[in-house]
Amino acid sequence: MGHGRIKLDVALIHYPVCNKQGETIGSAVTNLDIHDIARAGRTFGVNNVYIVTPYEDQQTLVQEILDHWIVGYGAKKNKDRKEALSIVRICGSLQSLLQEVEKKWGERPFVMATCAAGGSDTLGYKEVQEEILAGKPHLLLFGTAWGLAPEIFAAVAGTLPPIIGCGQYNHLSVRSAVAIILDRLLGE
Amino acid sequence: MGHGRIKLDVALIHYPVCNKQGETIGSAVTNLDIHDIARAGRTFGVNNVYIVTPYEDQQTLVQEILDHWIVGYGAKKNKDRKEALSIVRICGSLQSLLQEVEKKWGERPFVMATCAAGGSDTLGYKEVQEEILAGKPHLLLFGTAWGLAPEIFAAVAGTLPPIIGCGQYNHLSVRSAVAIILDRLLGE
Repeated sequence: MGHGRIKLDVALIHYPVCNKQGETIGSAVTNLDIHDIARAGRTFGVNNVYIVTPYEDQQTLVQEILDHWIVGYGAKKNKDRKEALSIVRICGSLQSLLQEVEKKWGERPFVMATCAAGGSDTLGYKEVQEEILAGKPHLLLFGTAWGLAPEIFAAVAGTLPPIIGCGQYNHLSVRSAVAIILDRLLGE
Repeated sequence: MGHGRIKLDVALIHYPVCNKQGETIGSAVTNLDIHDIARAGRTFGVNNVYIVTPYEDQQTLVQEILDHWIVGYGAKKNKDRKEALSIVRICGSLQSLLQEVEKKWGERPFVMATCAAGGSDTLGYKEVQEEILAGKPHLLLFGTAWGLAPEIFAAVAGTLPPIIGCGQYNHLSVRSAVAIILDRLLGE
């Protein structure tokens, strides 16, 4: 099954995010986040996965990981991984992310936040799916650490509903949340 | 939303699994597999997550990780993680896993394999969901490395369909696959 020309991007935000106390912080990049989200993104037809961090040493680390799998030894060892990591881009801020995505599509994307807490959602999965399949560019923001900072929710066009399983507990990893949300929006 | 008394278990198999060449091997345990699968399991109401490995040093490693988060420093630092990891059990073989799960439920569970390759599926997500919600015990087997070994497919009662996104590429991490399959079976 293909999705035709969907225009969907995913961004993993490392700043500004919350720590456990709700303070705004910058988080460190996790190697497996890059791999898992790139693999899920490639599987579901995401155009690019943006790793957003303002820290130069973290950007360098991400670039080294990408180089290993795209042009280095890893590329020869695992072509599937190369194909997944080839969609990853590094970005310094939310502002430059928005500029880059808008430039790519030639129009402003519909920017959506994701959140584990209920009450803040504004659009259902079905509605967003229809817009994406209709070809309208969408950008989904995922937070590391304890989630996206309040200033991000204030800046986006909408927020997807939290993933509810059984009862109150919904402490998924961001890797799992990305996988589930992409499947809800684009899985068969 | 609760699921009433569902009887669902998930097992992450480290032996027997395939390597890239299709040979049967035992794989090493990955720390983040335990965390991500336990968190997804707890979110969706899974009873236990079984880490299946015959290697004693690997069993010891898993137990040390569990101890840190359930009774050690991690338990004080992050109660949500403690709650998730509390559902994890260690098991030495598929045979002892089946005995343990059968003993727990007082009846033989319906054992299902999962697989990234198409063609081997025998039951759809909707059918399996109905059986699970009807209270029949189910055990889902997930393979590490390049997936479950052929002898496992020969021994199970059924295989779930692969997760298809957009096109041919479906190289998800096992962490992502578990999250998506639990959401398909038990998400709202």
